[in-house]
Amino acid sequence: MTDAGADADPDADAEAGVRAANSAFYAALEARDLDAMADVWEHSDRIVVTHPGWPMLRGWARVAGSWDAIFRNTGYIQFVLTDEQVTVVDDSAWVTLDENILQSGSAEELSGSKATSVNVFVRGDDGWKMVVHHASPVAGDG
Amino acid sequence: MTDAGADADPDADAEAGVRAANSAFYAALEARDLDAMADVWEHSDRIVVTHPGWPMLRGWARVAGSWDAIFRNTGYIQFVLTDEQVTVVDDSAWVTLDENILQSGSAEELSGSKATSVNVFVRGDDGWKMVVHHASPVAGDG
Repeated sequence: MTDAGADADPDADAEAGVRAANSAFYAALEARDLDAMADVWEHSDRIVVTHPGWPMLRGWARVAGSWDAIFRNTGYIQFVLTDEQVTVVDDSAWVTLDENILQSGSAEELSGSKATSVNVFVRGDDGWKMVVHHASPVAGDG
Repeated sequence: MTDAGADADPDADAEAGVRAANSAFYAALEARDLDAMADVWEHSDRIVVTHPGWPMLRGWARVAGSWDAIFRNTGYIQFVLTDEQVTVVDDSAWVTLDENILQSGSAEELSGSKATSVNVFVRGDDGWKMVVHHASPVAGDG
């Protein structure tokens, strides 16, 4: 529930909740853990994921399928997040950040890449759930 | 103000307001009209724009500068928007859609491209204002 009237600072609580949900998203991604990823997302038709260079995918079935495919084709993936900023407006919030990614496919070699992302969350009875993840490749440091 | 208690359907009104703000954004872009673009955006430090392939830019000064540069380097640009979906949560909203773009630079020839975008709006005293535009290139139809 969102009734935080007795709290000392509900705004700070909300921002902390969003940061925790955002961290859980990247932890699930690094762990390649589909159950943990399922916990992060709202399971609805209104959710959207755009992976770097991919078309937009709508709805939990397609979102889950994309994570399953990515996890099966990723040997190792690590994120260093920079320039993170959180905005909360009532029961919705978004995090904008840069993703510095180190990863390997099925082969052994590691490769680095950079993406920039917006992650949107909505607060419901189960806390903050992801409704949009849109990550796009950055062509090089401008 | 957001007190729409007397309205027959405040949800429908909110969605119509978001669609109008989103249309005004693409109209300003097609017209390459910096004043119209300035009307679309919230003028604050929390706003973010990510143009296709660009790094993320924060704050109204950088956002405005990027539009000015784009408008000066674009001879013609037209958008056909497809698969548009609006979500409203209280005083924030986001539109996800595909952008089918036809444009020319300073030369005459037209080129086509496709991007997918999330546009976030916040409702204030002046109505719905854009706070995030994140567009990314789609590598080809998957």
